[in-house]
Amino acid sequence: MSAANRGSGREAEQPRIGIGILGKGTVGAAFRDLLEQRADMVEEVSGRRPEVSGVVSSQEGDFDRILADSEVIVELIGGTDPARDYVTRALREGRHVVTANKQLVAQHGDELVAAAKEGGAQLRFEAAVAGAIPVIRVLQESLGAVPIEKVTGIVNGTTNYILTEMARAGLSYEEALKQAQDLGYAEADPSEDVGGADAAAKMTILARLAFGAPVSLDDVPYEGIEEITADDLAYAKDLGLSLKLLGVAERLDDEISVRVFPCFLYPGHPLAPVEGPFNAVTVEAPVITEITMSGPGAGGEETASAVLGDVLSVLSGGSPLFEENSRLSVARDVNSAFYLHLEVEDRPGVLARVAEILGVNEVSVRSVVQRGLGDDARLEMVMHEGPESRFNAALEKIAELDFLRSPPRSIRVIEEEFV
Amino acid sequence: MSAANRGSGREAEQPRIGIGILGKGTVGAAFRDLLEQRADMVEEVSGRRPEVSGVVSSQEGDFDRILADSEVIVELIGGTDPARDYVTRALREGRHVVTANKQLVAQHGDELVAAAKEGGAQLRFEAAVAGAIPVIRVLQESLGAVPIEKVTGIVNGTTNYILTEMARAGLSYEEALKQAQDLGYAEADPSEDVGGADAAAKMTILARLAFGAPVSLDDVPYEGIEEITADDLAYAKDLGLSLKLLGVAERLDDEISVRVFPCFLYPGHPLAPVEGPFNAVTVEAPVITEITMSGPGAGGEETASAVLGDVLSVLSGGSPLFEENSRLSVARDVNSAFYLHLEVEDRPGVLARVAEILGVNEVSVRSVVQRGLGDDARLEMVMHEGPESRFNAALEKIAELDFLRSPPRSIRVIEEEFV
Repeated sequence: MSAANRGSGREAEQPRIGIGILGKGTVGAAFRDLLEQRADMVEEVSGRRPEVSGVVSSQEGDFDRILADSEVIVELIGGTDPARDYVTRALREGRHVVTANKQLVAQHGDELVAAAKEGGAQLRFEAAVAGAIPVIRVLQESLGAVPIEKVTGIVNGTTNYILTEMARAGLSYEEALKQAQDLGYAEADPSEDVGGADAAAKMTILARLAFGAPVSLDDVPYEGIEEITADDLAYAKDLGLSLKLLGVAERLDDEISVRVFPCFLYPGHPLAPVEGPFNAVTVEAPVITEITMSGPGAGGEETASAVLGDVLSVLSGGSPLFEENSRLSVARDVNSAFYLHLEVEDRPGVLARVAEILGVNEVSVRSVVQRGLGDDARLEMVMHEGPESRFNAALEKIAELDFLRSPPRSIRVIEEEFV
Repeated sequence: MSAANRGSGREAEQPRIGIGILGKGTVGAAFRDLLEQRADMVEEVSGRRPEVSGVVSSQEGDFDRILADSEVIVELIGGTDPARDYVTRALREGRHVVTANKQLVAQHGDELVAAAKEGGAQLRFEAAVAGAIPVIRVLQESLGAVPIEKVTGIVNGTTNYILTEMARAGLSYEEALKQAQDLGYAEADPSEDVGGADAAAKMTILARLAFGAPVSLDDVPYEGIEEITADDLAYAKDLGLSLKLLGVAERLDDEISVRVFPCFLYPGHPLAPVEGPFNAVTVEAPVITEITMSGPGAGGEETASAVLGDVLSVLSGGSPLFEENSRLSVARDVNSAFYLHLEVEDRPGVLARVAEILGVNEVSVRSVVQRGLGDDARLEMVMHEGPESRFNAALEKIAELDFLRSPPRSIRVIEEEFV
């Protein structure tokens, strides 16, 4: 109410909406193009014509002047500095902000929400997660009143492309990464994507919205795909499994757990068929069973389209529901099933020793396959679901065994029954 | 603005939101339960506590009294009479309306939109299409500024369940229908579902939103699945195809086409893996490539959850973009590829005669398989894509051939390449 009324005397005489753009990169350019193409549509819907009041990059431009001339600030600079300062000031001064900046929202969400309340302004960030897939809006609005149990996502297109190519063409991790870089799906320095940090930031945002809890990036342990081998994917193919880098945010009684890790999915899991640079998110709740949304990961045009959707929502006046309403703590231990791959010496007693360690730690074995002979002997085991702490304790002991030819390798397995 | 201000003097003193419910069936009961469970959440978000001001069924209750006491009317009666009268009056008198009534919106959309404008009220109908999958909100809001090319949907869970069971267990149509009725997935009189009319109403609504065009139910030709045989599904299985009842709404230059028909999908189509009573919708547009959303079809709880999401949106003040902005006409002819199944006498010249008729009508054959001998001889052909008018002209001639042992059967085939 306060934001709408502020300065409304001037706005009533003013048939234009000033939109200040922060960022001169690919997404910034794509957004300016799209805004120009769709200006008639925006005017039809909002009653006023959008006008770019100015463009600032992190190096150049007069932010104060643009702030004064804008009703909506679109932040596409990326990174947290100077984005954090610009966005916080804009919100405090009652300017609505639309941002595509996942790190900013994941790391400073509390501060931004407080600034938006102070200024009576709207903060929207659909483009920060999963490109053009409207998962933020669905969590905030469609499912705003639904108690959500779990959000599972493939939220990084780079890693999904790499894993898909490793599985499809039998490439090594290095070959698939090189191919992704050549095609523009991976950056020259891919570490934020392949190491899992990008997915962790996105899952932080989804968890905040799903559970209304102040999850911070520090609460989200993550693993990447750098250690995945062609062997792991060959194993998956043999068994009809898919290997995905998965983000999981779930409610466990009075706790929540948010994690990112590579894992095997059984066929029938709604995320198993998601291939190439696509993203997908499944939301589970008793009253809706499950909803899955999939589409291309963030390209310039997809991101620009999500940003324009947010700008339109701001202009149509609804404010999203981004309220922390719960004080759920972060779980220290969660249940998982694991696949364990051991390269061992080919001699009697090896399996017995491994099985003993698992037994002592109360890790229950579901299947064992012994493959290869002599220098190629290995054990491939799948465990039943149980506390990760127990499996990790067993793994530590197993790693000390003198008959291992290389360090043990483990990957989580997800086998839930979906319809 | 006008709706928010109207009567705001009273509302400022009034910490409750009156919600009038039309309908005492399953969905009505599920909505009342959910509203009670989530009342705290609604209060937290909107600042006021929801209160059911009364419940009316089509037979009993005083609508005028409830109208006077309500700020929001939730219409769950179904059918168009008396729903049309109640909803139109409510909107004209400035009450926001949330409805799950697909027939009402598909048949009288223009009238409802006009009434909402007249009364300065909001009209929301997420629950009318695809249960808990928020496809309406995504089309109206997330993609409100995106020029959409095509919407493809499996929007009827009953028929998808029947087709899935026919394919999975080799059941006949009658057996699968019986099973669906026993499990509550099909009604005692299933004709609206299996005949395609239900899907046609939903596609009418999606097409209006996607193209901003005043599509009416009369513009949407539809076919159902009553004629589908176990043979068709066996054929699909042989070739790795899925058979689905598909709704397609697409823009063709300056025209649009909206249709419902059973068809074969090649693997890789985003709707091919959708099984059982699930619904799914794929939206395609250049700037977003494609987005697919899937989830369970309409059950009482899923519908109630979609209705509550709409109620929350109404209370948070944003108005959806449901504007007709284009005058696209409805295409008379569209391109399709067809599968053609002919049971023929086993004698020379049969294939030549069929091929000649197809050639004269410029229908190009992509593959032919001749199966069976003697009394079981049949031709299974797949055509290249071409105008339906030409294929239908050829089909008419083929039906007159004296060597057919039964009427020809044809099913569309969709083979687009998705990523």
